[in-house]
Amino acid sequence: MKFPSKILEDTVNSLSSLPGVGKKTALRLALHLCADETGKSTKIADALHRLKSELKECRRCHMIADDHLCQICAEPHRNKRMLCIVEHIRDLMAIEDTQQFSGYYHVLGGLISPIDGVGPQDLHIESLVQRVTNEGIEELIMALSPTIEGDTTIFYISKRLAHLPVRISTIARGVAFGGELEYADELTLGRSIQSRTPYQNQNGLAQ
Amino acid sequence: MKFPSKILEDTVNSLSSLPGVGKKTALRLALHLCADETGKSTKIADALHRLKSELKECRRCHMIADDHLCQICAEPHRNKRMLCIVEHIRDLMAIEDTQQFSGYYHVLGGLISPIDGVGPQDLHIESLVQRVTNEGIEELIMALSPTIEGDTTIFYISKRLAHLPVRISTIARGVAFGGELEYADELTLGRSIQSRTPYQNQNGLAQ
Repeated sequence: MKFPSKILEDTVNSLSSLPGVGKKTALRLALHLCADETGKSTKIADALHRLKSELKECRRCHMIADDHLCQICAEPHRNKRMLCIVEHIRDLMAIEDTQQFSGYYHVLGGLISPIDGVGPQDLHIESLVQRVTNEGIEELIMALSPTIEGDTTIFYISKRLAHLPVRISTIARGVAFGGELEYADELTLGRSIQSRTPYQNQNGLAQ
Repeated sequence: MKFPSKILEDTVNSLSSLPGVGKKTALRLALHLCADETGKSTKIADALHRLKSELKECRRCHMIADDHLCQICAEPHRNKRMLCIVEHIRDLMAIEDTQQFSGYYHVLGGLISPIDGVGPQDLHIESLVQRVTNEGIEELIMALSPTIEGDTTIFYISKRLAHLPVRISTIARGVAFGGELEYADELTLGRSIQSRTPYQNQNGLAQ
């Protein structure tokens, strides 16, 4: 691709460094921004500058934060006795969007994966042990991906916390709502039979 | 979508103002930039700032330019007698990438479209007449979209230039290379029969 302008070329090259954005998409975005009169490119540039210079990590849960504490840790009325452990910030946001969890979170920043050279010391596990020791937490909900790395991480954390009076649970794994049984993979289907739950009608009463 | 941080929210909102970028994609891009250690977000922010503050329009062909003249108008060894008329900068770049045209360009900035309220005075047609009058151009190649608006624009320009000794041609319209005849639309197929060309073998000789 030959560019009529060095500035345009720089813009296309920098935009195409984003995941899922190729040269053609980057060019379309750049030309859109060239033609735009509403100041979009300035808004994006300012936001990206602030993203790098002002964004902090919450010192309690390791989430993205504007201040020392993130907006969730700063909420006083959540359930202090429950802590949900997630791998990434986007997992946390997905759980928050369900509005089914009212406790606090802890972001590990990854999963234990010897094959990728990620050990427990690379994750926020030490600060998790500190929180469970000091904050009177009664239940840890492990909302990690159902992979070997996720299971290894849950196993390691449960060993580290074995001496503390905390219950550990994992989010339910099974066939997705709206999914068809015949297309579910064997492992998921097998586990969903092992982890079957008593049938309840819509009023929550067991039949 | 609930955000843990105002800065992240601003970034996602500004990124999702781009065409084809929804909230989820914008979030993925923003979190990627948060985690990135190579300074991508600064590079993008700087490029976008320069895009808005430093980018100029070529005073000859109305292309995007770093200076008063764009890189193509500044090339001295192109064919001065041929001018290719395009609607948008991306059409120009697509033609340049074919390496089949060695003349100069003129970017109209749109097509005449009464239904959208775009008249000849909204396009760079006056400066085109000036160029044809003053620059000794012998052939205009109309590389406009084969739509009603494109045809109207070609008709208008040909009328405006009727008093000048300049040949006007349009790029060939027909069945695309690699396309299957049965899937071509009727209009294209009909026109491709009307505009049939003498068969030439690979050495360029008529049979």
